[in-house]
Amino acid sequence: MAGRLKFYGWGLENTGFDQGERDRLFWFIKNKLDVEPRAVAPPQVSDIALTPPRIQAPATLAAIFANDPYERLLHTYGKSYPETVRAFAREFRNAPDLVVYPRNAADIAALLDWASGANVAVIPFGCGSSVVGGIEPEVGGNFAGTVSLDLRSLNRVLEVDATSRAARIEAGILGPQLEAALKPHGLSIRHYPQSFEFSTLGGWIATRSGGHFATLYTHIDDFVESISMVTPAGVIESRRLPGSGAGPSPDRMMIGSEGALGVITEAWMRLQARPSFRGGAVFGFPDLFAAAKAVRAVAQAGLYPSNLRVIDNQEAGTYGVNDYGETLLMLAFESADHPVDVWMARAMELVQDHGGRKHRDESAALAWRTAFIRMPYGRELTVPLSVINDTFETAITWDRFEAFHASVSKATAEAIKEATGQDGTVSTRFTHVYPDGPAPYYTFNAKGTPGRVLEQWRHIKTRASDALIAAGGTITHHHAVGRDHMPWYRKQRPALFGQALAAAKATLDPRGILNPGVLVP
Amino acid sequence: MAGRLKFYGWGLENTGFDQGERDRLFWFIKNKLDVEPRAVAPPQVSDIALTPPRIQAPATLAAIFANDPYERLLHTYGKSYPETVRAFAREFRNAPDLVVYPRNAADIAALLDWASGANVAVIPFGCGSSVVGGIEPEVGGNFAGTVSLDLRSLNRVLEVDATSRAARIEAGILGPQLEAALKPHGLSIRHYPQSFEFSTLGGWIATRSGGHFATLYTHIDDFVESISMVTPAGVIESRRLPGSGAGPSPDRMMIGSEGALGVITEAWMRLQARPSFRGGAVFGFPDLFAAAKAVRAVAQAGLYPSNLRVIDNQEAGTYGVNDYGETLLMLAFESADHPVDVWMARAMELVQDHGGRKHRDESAALAWRTAFIRMPYGRELTVPLSVINDTFETAITWDRFEAFHASVSKATAEAIKEATGQDGTVSTRFTHVYPDGPAPYYTFNAKGTPGRVLEQWRHIKTRASDALIAAGGTITHHHAVGRDHMPWYRKQRPALFGQALAAAKATLDPRGILNPGVLVP
Repeated sequence: MAGRLKFYGWGLENTGFDQGERDRLFWFIKNKLDVEPRAVAPPQVSDIALTPPRIQAPATLAAIFANDPYERLLHTYGKSYPETVRAFAREFRNAPDLVVYPRNAADIAALLDWASGANVAVIPFGCGSSVVGGIEPEVGGNFAGTVSLDLRSLNRVLEVDATSRAARIEAGILGPQLEAALKPHGLSIRHYPQSFEFSTLGGWIATRSGGHFATLYTHIDDFVESISMVTPAGVIESRRLPGSGAGPSPDRMMIGSEGALGVITEAWMRLQARPSFRGGAVFGFPDLFAAAKAVRAVAQAGLYPSNLRVIDNQEAGTYGVNDYGETLLMLAFESADHPVDVWMARAMELVQDHGGRKHRDESAALAWRTAFIRMPYGRELTVPLSVINDTFETAITWDRFEAFHASVSKATAEAIKEATGQDGTVSTRFTHVYPDGPAPYYTFNAKGTPGRVLEQWRHIKTRASDALIAAGGTITHHHAVGRDHMPWYRKQRPALFGQALAAAKATLDPRGILNPGVLVP
Repeated sequence: MAGRLKFYGWGLENTGFDQGERDRLFWFIKNKLDVEPRAVAPPQVSDIALTPPRIQAPATLAAIFANDPYERLLHTYGKSYPETVRAFAREFRNAPDLVVYPRNAADIAALLDWASGANVAVIPFGCGSSVVGGIEPEVGGNFAGTVSLDLRSLNRVLEVDATSRAARIEAGILGPQLEAALKPHGLSIRHYPQSFEFSTLGGWIATRSGGHFATLYTHIDDFVESISMVTPAGVIESRRLPGSGAGPSPDRMMIGSEGALGVITEAWMRLQARPSFRGGAVFGFPDLFAAAKAVRAVAQAGLYPSNLRVIDNQEAGTYGVNDYGETLLMLAFESADHPVDVWMARAMELVQDHGGRKHRDESAALAWRTAFIRMPYGRELTVPLSVINDTFETAITWDRFEAFHASVSKATAEAIKEATGQDGTVSTRFTHVYPDGPAPYYTFNAKGTPGRVLEQWRHIKTRASDALIAAGGTITHHHAVGRDHMPWYRKQRPALFGQALAAAKATLDPRGILNPGVLVP
């Protein structure tokens, strides 16, 4: 990583929006939210008074610990909206006492031993891109201290099996590192969450990350062949298999465990040959529901496009792709084996049969994609201006989608008005699509009141989440549970499954030191 | 079901091989195993002396209990080789004390309440097609008695959501009942295990059944949208979702739980439109390894054929499809949406590039398929002649496949010689194929010694399973664990996962009454 990560925002220090991007963002907040834009300097390390660490590193592991202020600040927050607000408010009271950079699984086992004995909470940290409060050391008052366990030193591809198209990979590797290591083999993981540049393989597995493919292989889950995880009770290492029917899947207990059951140290991952054939097109629809019908037809046709994303009118406008006049559907196929013309032709026919107007080119898709990847840099500009901006994502079956969407978007818009006294914006896209339903992704923006944005955000988040759960959705399709989603996760998951999971945690983490408060209350 | 199930073999009473099938089977055992064929009458209910039930049905549920000898015999065994041997030996000492036919989830909850209090072991029963000792009431000496819980009264399709292509279905429905109920909607589950006619939706989910599709949607797992399960601690009902990222999947704990965590009562299942387009072809190869290379190429091409099965020379010969001279590869695509010519053309090109010789028609595939579906009826003819005949199946990554296959088939052939003093047959097919490896399925036949076949079978099974686990495979790809696979399952699954699963079971089934001995020792 060529530079130092910001402790208060997205990406590396001295990177961010260019002038054009900033102008577009400022135009939006002025014209759509009635917020007067201005540049505000971000917090500096020296601005912040941290309380001294309450614990000391064990002597045998002292070499891998850090306790300087920058490291403690960097490991305090993920990249959620409320965390960014608190970072800009110079509020870091939950900073970890210490940060540890293990070099290998043995370091992690020793660390968990020590922490279990010393009653120290340990929070696994990939690269800190959580947007759900997954890594903040907010663990209650029952621990002697907290340690953030940064896995980025475990960053190697250990073995490549080109025959089976799989590789054994350490969990702390960042997306670009992984792709660089696989490229000489003609292989790729083809998993590109928005956070790709600043997230790790282990983080993707622990949070059931959603990636590149809009259909079929939507979550990282599908690419996991086996996992090694260090727990306070010992190591769990699943068997490397292309498929199995031997009891409930051990991998499926570790996938989505969010650091609460153990620390994922490595995994055998299924890979893809780098595609050499591609076809893509963009279509316009009058609105989201019209586009949804076309998407459903394609999703149920057994064609498996790599891209099948929808951007509603509001979202396209917000991202500067068009003037709010059209819902966009992006369609693409890719293959390393064969031309995709026939696949494209049939999918396009289905989309056009359902009223899609084909664009002359894919420029709208490219414009959206660029804005999408760059978007996380915007928040450090808007948070100081008390703009409230957040996203949430879910999934719902097709039969309930229209009523679901009406309920959730109405609740969100109303909650913005209730909380701030003014209208904001609510926009929608589909990030992933299944034969039995879409994964809608909502973005909202509001003009917050200086000093009150956290409570205003909380009101909106609560109303939206309540509506989403009441209407049958999931509290998260690929952002994970973290601390922010716990109230709704507890409503969503069967209560007895929660008890079974707690029993599993008590077995693997008997002192309850791992990411306390996440998944298991 | 138009007739009564045999308690000692496959299917309904008064059904079985026709004269031609019997002639072919007898030719095989005479010429390949040196066993003199003759017809032997199967056991009759009146042949068998059962000990009286040790327990009484609770008065409030008496109406749904049965205790007549036929019911107790029918619910003693699945359809494994050793079970059939014991049935023909009139050995039914583990017969359940009682059989219960609940009408609904409330009956099951009441039954589990009673059984938990009365220390009665409860074994969920679909239609008894287990081939791994999954349903035999062999529960050790710590219970007051045993009850086989037959789910076949829960056999309705409760709701069809044609928009999302899904249905809510009771767990005890048999394959043909399910297809008949879905057909008017133009939908199908398209899941056809060999046992299709005599197995249930709940059984498929509880055992991670492998079905129709040779690639992509190989296991029933992929079709599960949500599950309702009654446990002694209460009901677990997962949320109906097309996808989710909210923690470890609750469904994936219930899928493959083999009756040890709870009784699956209903599920929302993803369905398929009934296909209207199809293309298929059969190819010949000199041997399995040559065919495997072609299969790997197709499996890694992103084409997703519905059929991509391989039958090696020995298996083709055994099934009477050819004279042992050729390994067969069966390829097929199906679609409800589009002609599959282009898919077929590219896959055929890959197969032919790898040396596949295209047959003029698919007759070899049809001949094999017919023999395959009818095969379970053969065992009642061969068991009385002390022929040892069994199958086992696994999965392995491509890089290890050749060494794995050499080791497993050699160990099996050697074990046959060690146990019986004579050579038998060992044949192989691929039932399912993944981009990262095949699911090989082995069949062996041997001339056993009258009165010693169980110990001889045990030796062969043990040597084969030891070899398979040592070489990196899974003890089962889709037959489940049951009682027969427990020793190897315990080696295969991570020990700490076993402990976590035991903790989950202790939460859901605190008295340990559910299918004792399966999955959790």
